Amino acid sequence: MNFISFLKHQLKTLIIGYRFMQVVEAPYGAFSKIGKYADVLMDQQGMQLLIEHLSCTSEGKQALAERRYLGKVDLDALYQLPPNTLGHLYAAHMKQNGLVPPPVREPAPNDYVYLFNYISETHDIWHIVTGSDTTKAGELQIETFSLAQFYPARFWIALLAKNFLKTALFEIELCEELMAAVVRGWIMGRRAKPLFGIPWQEHWETPIDQIRAELNIDSVLSADMEAVLTKSATNAPASSAFEANDSLSVVTLVS
Amino acid sequence: MNFISFLKHQLKTLIIGYRFMQVVEAPYGAFSKIGKYADVLMDQQGMQLLIEHLSCTSEGKQALAERRYLGKVDLDALYQLPPNTLGHLYAAHMKQNGLVPPPVREPAPNDYVYLFNYISETHDIWHIVTGSDTTKAGELQIETFSLAQFYPARFWIALLAKNFLKTALFEIELCEELMAAVVRGWIMGRRAKPLFGIPWQEHWETPIDQIRAELNIDSVLSADMEAVLTKSATNAPASSAFEANDSLSVVTLVS
Repeated sequence: MNFISFLKHQLKTLIIGYRFMQVVEAPYGAFSKIGKYADVLMDQQGMQLLIEHLSCTSEGKQALAERRYLGKVDLDALYQLPPNTLGHLYAAHMKQNGLVPPPVREPAPNDYVYLFNYISETHDIWHIVTGSDTTKAGELQIETFSLAQFYPARFWIALLAKNFLKTALFEIELCEELMAAVVRGWIMGRRAKPLFGIPWQEHWETPIDQIRAELNIDSVLSADMEAVLTKSATNAPASSAFEANDSLSVVTLVS
Repeated sequence: MNFISFLKHQLKTLIIGYRFMQVVEAPYGAFSKIGKYADVLMDQQGMQLLIEHLSCTSEGKQALAERRYLGKVDLDALYQLPPNTLGHLYAAHMKQNGLVPPPVREPAPNDYVYLFNYISETHDIWHIVTGSDTTKAGELQIETFSLAQFYPARFWIALLAKNFLKTALFEIELCEELMAAVVRGWIMGRRAKPLFGIPWQEHWETPIDQIRAELNIDSVLSADMEAVLTKSATNAPASSAFEANDSLSVVTLVS
């Protein structure tokens, strides 16, 4: 590595560390900071690998070729659909969480922007399809499900890294629950058929059970696995936010 | 939060970010850097929670009360034991990996130093007992096993965070294998009886199968789970180290 490459590498490391800590400190779902973090993580080669994988299905290939978005989403109309349909459940989820439907977008200038927008606008549909709630555990379940489906993507694994350090520093009491979600999401995402490229706007009226059966999505694992994942190892502490000024020291022993 | 607390918090965040990126960039097993990272992560309250959990078994309680170490370990003598014993397998592992036995230590001044040293000196025994090899996947399997056993510990989950970002940046081609190890280690660690405090020096001559049976350690999951974890989603790329100067940009779309 020559000197200029070395400096570039050092600068990149600093930027990644800085943006990493920014997302670690930000609340879940801080999309602007996550976007900046994604930018510094995704590279051309990584994108190429991901695109190749997503093109393996005809629906994925077509979505990429057309850079197809959801288009206009009318939550009030979807809410009127029967209660067991994707459309109704999605509209109810959006309303309950105070979310607005995704904007009708201009064509994306490249695959990266397309995929970023695609993930943003289908994320809440994936919540419904995978049966993941909006707790932190639910978000982690979607993340590992997404990591398995958008594979390989530096972004998703780096997002997990962020959530793990966040858990370590600020919410260690959630650790068991989050690890169960990580395991469950990964297994569900590996078992499921590829979701990327499915034109959800053509399936609003489909019963959710039918969609899950067709996509091989089942959030319940074997009884043995469920027992392992859900037992509690300890009484959850009421609060365990990391204290700024009571670090311990062992370095003199290992330096 | 007053101004001084705010400054302390900001400084702590910077230090964590800096040490985090240092371990992200360091090779696996860089104990000195990991020690500095651990120091900035462990706090009194977190230690208290961990100690309470580790004291649940009589062996754990005793180990903590006596701050008991392995003592002198003679690898040549252990190597002479029958091939299926813990002692022989441990000695063979140490020799094959060019490792020296842990030093005979002075009594630890506090629980934190004791636990750090305890984990250092039993780590390679846990490799044998859990059947984890010394590949990166094997190390991650031990990490999640350890997270389940030393619970709750900010350190282990933060170490996972480090390895996830490392994977994202430098070895995305290992992602499937590492995720399988994360899942397997967590499940194994939750299923197993508590290992902390077992006086391994009294079990060198015990056959490894007997130890695993007594501790309920089995690295093979159900056939269904094994199929999900080990299938390959994509052709592994030959190399995918993160390039320093070809980032992509989406932030203008989400800012």
